[in-house]
Amino acid sequence: MARIKDTPSSLVADWKTLHRVFIRPEDESSRETLVKYMEQILFGLHDFLNQHVGVTEEISLIKLAEEYTDTEINKDPQKKLADVIKDIIDEIAPRAVNVASPYFVGHMTSAIPFFMVHLKAITAALNQNVIKLETSKVLSVLEKQILAKMHRMIFDFNEPFYLEHVQNTETSLGVFTTGGTTANLTALWVARNKSFPPKGNFESLEKNGFFEAMTAHDLERTVVLVSKRGHYSLRKAGGILGFGNQNVIPIDVDDNRSIDLIKLESKIQELQATGRTKIIAIIGIAGATETGIIDPLPKLADICEARGIHFHVDAAWGGPVLLSEKYRHLLKGIERADSVTIDCHKQFYMPMTAGMVYFKDPKAMDHIVYHSSYVNRPGSVDLGIKTLEGSREANSLILDSALKIMGSKGYALMIDHGIETALHFSKMIRQRRLFQLITTPQLNILTYRVVPLDMQEKLKTTDQKERQRLDAILDDINIKIQRLQREAGKSFVSRTRLKYSPTDDHNIVVLRSVIMNPMTSVEILEDILDEQETIFHDLMTS
Amino acid sequence: MARIKDTPSSLVADWKTLHRVFIRPEDESSRETLVKYMEQILFGLHDFLNQHVGVTEEISLIKLAEEYTDTEINKDPQKKLADVIKDIIDEIAPRAVNVASPYFVGHMTSAIPFFMVHLKAITAALNQNVIKLETSKVLSVLEKQILAKMHRMIFDFNEPFYLEHVQNTETSLGVFTTGGTTANLTALWVARNKSFPPKGNFESLEKNGFFEAMTAHDLERTVVLVSKRGHYSLRKAGGILGFGNQNVIPIDVDDNRSIDLIKLESKIQELQATGRTKIIAIIGIAGATETGIIDPLPKLADICEARGIHFHVDAAWGGPVLLSEKYRHLLKGIERADSVTIDCHKQFYMPMTAGMVYFKDPKAMDHIVYHSSYVNRPGSVDLGIKTLEGSREANSLILDSALKIMGSKGYALMIDHGIETALHFSKMIRQRRLFQLITTPQLNILTYRVVPLDMQEKLKTTDQKERQRLDAILDDINIKIQRLQREAGKSFVSRTRLKYSPTDDHNIVVLRSVIMNPMTSVEILEDILDEQETIFHDLMTS
Repeated sequence: MARIKDTPSSLVADWKTLHRVFIRPEDESSRETLVKYMEQILFGLHDFLNQHVGVTEEISLIKLAEEYTDTEINKDPQKKLADVIKDIIDEIAPRAVNVASPYFVGHMTSAIPFFMVHLKAITAALNQNVIKLETSKVLSVLEKQILAKMHRMIFDFNEPFYLEHVQNTETSLGVFTTGGTTANLTALWVARNKSFPPKGNFESLEKNGFFEAMTAHDLERTVVLVSKRGHYSLRKAGGILGFGNQNVIPIDVDDNRSIDLIKLESKIQELQATGRTKIIAIIGIAGATETGIIDPLPKLADICEARGIHFHVDAAWGGPVLLSEKYRHLLKGIERADSVTIDCHKQFYMPMTAGMVYFKDPKAMDHIVYHSSYVNRPGSVDLGIKTLEGSREANSLILDSALKIMGSKGYALMIDHGIETALHFSKMIRQRRLFQLITTPQLNILTYRVVPLDMQEKLKTTDQKERQRLDAILDDINIKIQRLQREAGKSFVSRTRLKYSPTDDHNIVVLRSVIMNPMTSVEILEDILDEQETIFHDLMTS
Repeated sequence: MARIKDTPSSLVADWKTLHRVFIRPEDESSRETLVKYMEQILFGLHDFLNQHVGVTEEISLIKLAEEYTDTEINKDPQKKLADVIKDIIDEIAPRAVNVASPYFVGHMTSAIPFFMVHLKAITAALNQNVIKLETSKVLSVLEKQILAKMHRMIFDFNEPFYLEHVQNTETSLGVFTTGGTTANLTALWVARNKSFPPKGNFESLEKNGFFEAMTAHDLERTVVLVSKRGHYSLRKAGGILGFGNQNVIPIDVDDNRSIDLIKLESKIQELQATGRTKIIAIIGIAGATETGIIDPLPKLADICEARGIHFHVDAAWGGPVLLSEKYRHLLKGIERADSVTIDCHKQFYMPMTAGMVYFKDPKAMDHIVYHSSYVNRPGSVDLGIKTLEGSREANSLILDSALKIMGSKGYALMIDHGIETALHFSKMIRQRRLFQLITTPQLNILTYRVVPLDMQEKLKTTDQKERQRLDAILDDINIKIQRLQREAGKSFVSRTRLKYSPTDDHNIVVLRSVIMNPMTSVEILEDILDEQETIFHDLMTS
């Protein structure tokens, strides 16, 4: 137990030092020092980000790993704050990934507005815990307000509805979570519990468990339906919530790359035929992780309504599109969902780790209430009564402040930029002979691949089997291009696997771009394609 | 869908402004402005914290709620960053809870060292997402290192073991979570899955779900055992994981206020008698939320070992005691656990939201592996492969830096201070005639109540029924004292419900103190008791 390294150090941990780090220095010179540290953080990191455009890959992973193998904790202090900051700027930052670069268009992590760093610092300095009123007070009240604002953005009920619920301690319009994964998990947790009403001795799934729930309701299977493009957190939720991840049933996509409604209908009929399968939710995606595609939400709402099935919309990515007057219509139907996931650290451009989930019915979250004697007493404002997570920082303050600084219009500018730049990018890809567009962007995500001209011709005329052989060669080429580009350190696109056409029997490797950084211009995207062409030609001649 | 308020504003969201908030200002004066904002955050909040000692309660909750009822999002920007910061300092902070006050001894949230704000700002500025290598690189490697350091602190395997696993992409010594709740959930998720090995067509609980698992193994009940002092997140985990929160079975505590081993043994025998109940875990508490008590870990380890049951230790609170040479022995037996929860935002004094869970067996987390095509590919360093959460900020950088700045000795000073001050506090309570100590502190948490002298005598001689009547009167008095003290705004202790004696048939209301702020001195605790005495006497004479 407890291994601690005792090496000599000039620094000592003593009571005087300890007091100094808790009680912030009063004198002018100490204050200046602390501010100077913060300046280093704001601009030391900034200078690095400017100098190293692109994804940093200065050192191989294996070499890097070799430097981080000491596993003993030092007894004495090893470094002062100033040196820790210096080391982070000099040694950690250059080996981190410059997600803020406009050439980083591979993932849903990007540059964030600089004021987010200030807001995060405020949250840390206040150190409120919004699990309960006694450690947050006004922040709990503020959180309920911003939850109502977001609920209104999604569901748009009338003013009396919001006046009734905004500060109501008995109802919940939604909760902050630590991300889209736990937001989806929370939504399915609620949907699962409400699918098993009391029956005989069985009170609730939450209390009695799955085995009793299934037995009482004479069921043998519990499922969730979502398109093949559903985020993997949904499968994980199936595992965690105990209905099994194989019962998160993937439905094929159609020619629009969104859920195939005919196949969905026939799967529902098949599942309901025996009367022994419970469909606890159907999920519509509003911005698929891989393709950005939005499912036909109004039609999914019709299906769910007709059959009394919980309709969840995973808008972790696409939710903030609601702030754009120009593109809001793409999410039509979301207002008919029973629950909606939206991530804060995606298109709300907030720092990690922040998500949200909303419920149309302010009583829906009663299915997951937990009380205890020391916190979360019944009838209190304590937000922790209905959250999956326990202690939580006040991310609501960051979202609220960001909306005040940006206005919905500021966010809309970014959303519009992403969608329009992605559309432009898709045209550029179509115009270049070496590239093949795989998924047209509906939002700001698209996929494509490199296909040499001679192979493009062949692909058009051959049968599935030969196509599969050719695709395997192309997979290899595209994996190499993606890796070499990443390792060159200037740009980053990601890759995934998709079917070329819904009727295909095999997946292909595709390059994936996410245009969320407002600094990512058409010129930069031309550079990225140029570089991919160069890498391809070097590959072919080497 | 999408309700947005269009009110005139002098601020506009335009492309130029947008660029300015993403590309940080280059010229000297803009840099100075940004630094000045940070200075306001560091010291504006600081000045408030110094001026308003104690828990702030300037305004009633109902009045406060009335001010936060506007639920429309503004279209144009409403405020500049400077004004947002000013408003937070002037309006939010005075209505938040001053958890940093040394008079705030009611909850597990406290002052944090000032450098934590700097470290949190760094994490936000880097905005790495440690779900995968491609958005974190060195941070993933660093995270594996600090996980190994913590694992070693707990389990103390030998150097070759850590050299093998510290940077091994196939194994996991633990993971960062967003708190103790999801850490406990993760531990029980692993324990649940490993309790149901493949059998016939049944592959795993994760894949096939609970109903098939129970059917394949011919079981009718799945349970977890923990003392009555178990954190409510364990019950919640029972609900989420699908075995039902009624199957998180609370075992009485004995005269030591820790789990009653005789009752535990007899409950195990009772449960195992039919052969149709699966005990997936027994949980030992290392620092109970209400009393700070540590269960007899070596004996629990014996019981679990003998019966092949997963042994989880919830050391969310007590874990960092391992850094104290003086008190580490209190956690003896923790090294025999199969999994251990430790919170970062508790006694590691980190900002919200950060927890951790560790597994003795580096392969244990294989029970909860998730891959996807675009991230978390098999064999990669991607940390998201085995986490309940998805996207995550790099809290590991904060913990690593804090340990370098403080050394284990710095943390030990705080741990020792808390334990010794709590012990002193308990003596003070014993010496005051108006107070009755309920639970003696083993760590830095204790409970007590106000009992008028005449009632103390009566309580000694009466029967249970009369005691219950008297206790109800005392409950009322103590609830009032706690509330009035909180509302006075100078000090804060919390309250909960416990049995006075394990053999009692009813709970009583107790006042609860958590001594974690190193600035909380004996003098301050005298003040708090003085104030409670004054409130009591005012109550009696009014």
